[in-house]
Amino acid sequence: MIEKEFFNAKEKALKSLEKACNDNETDEQIMPILNIINNIEKCYTTSSCAGRTVLLEIPRIGDKKAAKFLGKWHGIIKISDIKKASEKAKKGLIWILAQSPVIHIGCNDINIADKLLKTAIASGFKHSGLKSSRRKIIVEVCSTERLDSPIGRNGSLFCNEEHLQLLIYISNEIYQASNYKISQFEVNLRQNFV
Amino acid sequence: MIEKEFFNAKEKALKSLEKACNDNETDEQIMPILNIINNIEKCYTTSSCAGRTVLLEIPRIGDKKAAKFLGKWHGIIKISDIKKASEKAKKGLIWILAQSPVIHIGCNDINIADKLLKTAIASGFKHSGLKSSRRKIIVEVCSTERLDSPIGRNGSLFCNEEHLQLLIYISNEIYQASNYKISQFEVNLRQNFV
Repeated sequence: MIEKEFFNAKEKALKSLEKACNDNETDEQIMPILNIINNIEKCYTTSSCAGRTVLLEIPRIGDKKAAKFLGKWHGIIKISDIKKASEKAKKGLIWILAQSPVIHIGCNDINIADKLLKTAIASGFKHSGLKSSRRKIIVEVCSTERLDSPIGRNGSLFCNEEHLQLLIYISNEIYQASNYKISQFEVNLRQNFV
Repeated sequence: MIEKEFFNAKEKALKSLEKACNDNETDEQIMPILNIINNIEKCYTTSSCAGRTVLLEIPRIGDKKAAKFLGKWHGIIKISDIKKASEKAKKGLIWILAQSPVIHIGCNDINIADKLLKTAIASGFKHSGLKSSRRKIIVEVCSTERLDSPIGRNGSLFCNEEHLQLLIYISNEIYQASNYKISQFEVNLRQNFV
């Protein structure tokens, strides 16, 4: 990517991040990480999520585009959260998803991209990789823990209490593991890049 | 990676693939793909899976290393397959996982790696990426569809019949989507590399 083009893209990305911060649309937990990365001249963060649990309604199997969020949580959840959110469900499958963090980093230097990748993997984000190899490099920081489970249909849950409790326990475990990795990544980024 | 080192690694990988073929340990569906890739001078496949449904017993949450396979299927499954396999379960959580294909390709040329990556993404393997950027490049070909769902504990399933039927339906959908992507990938590889 031509240098000027890259820095224009970085400027644009930083502005939209600033806007997201002002609108309270950013995940607090990963802001220190985003700040460290955006302070590296040849890098900027494009999109990111600190990890979350979501309740989705998917009208037809496989049709993720038509999916609707019934609930979204960036923290520990309780059984009542799921029950309350599922009251909004109408038609289709209800899925619970526990998602680990994802951070995308645009980078203008293959050596820095490689060092970021190694730092991410060493912090526990073992599924990280480079998504593009010419013109613009994208470092994708991500992990493997996840839960993707259908738990109801047409407005009602078909999990019993014990099953639901277990799914919530696992979602919370994934959230806590994500938080730990995020803090490790921050420590390692400070060591390698600040 | 030094050229000689690369070709030694390729030779070793091809030998172990040949052994796996002789021992019937390879997934028939992806053999044409592996053959096309291994015929590209600067590439070789390291590990691969055509996509499968597995039933796992995990003694403690998160302890995937201690996981035990109760069943493994490279094809369409029925409810009786799961029930029969789960009879072997003793202690811990029983998970059903539907996994889409994964192919790892070692590559000695960044332009070929990039072309492989683009071919994979165009074939529906949208989560593909490059895993390493210096010395040795690994192209990881993979997709996002998956099911990761705990369905029982300590030897018994806690899903009712309807729930189990749905999980099997979804697993089979993922398997069929995987097969479709594999055949697309083969067509596109032939177009771009043969």
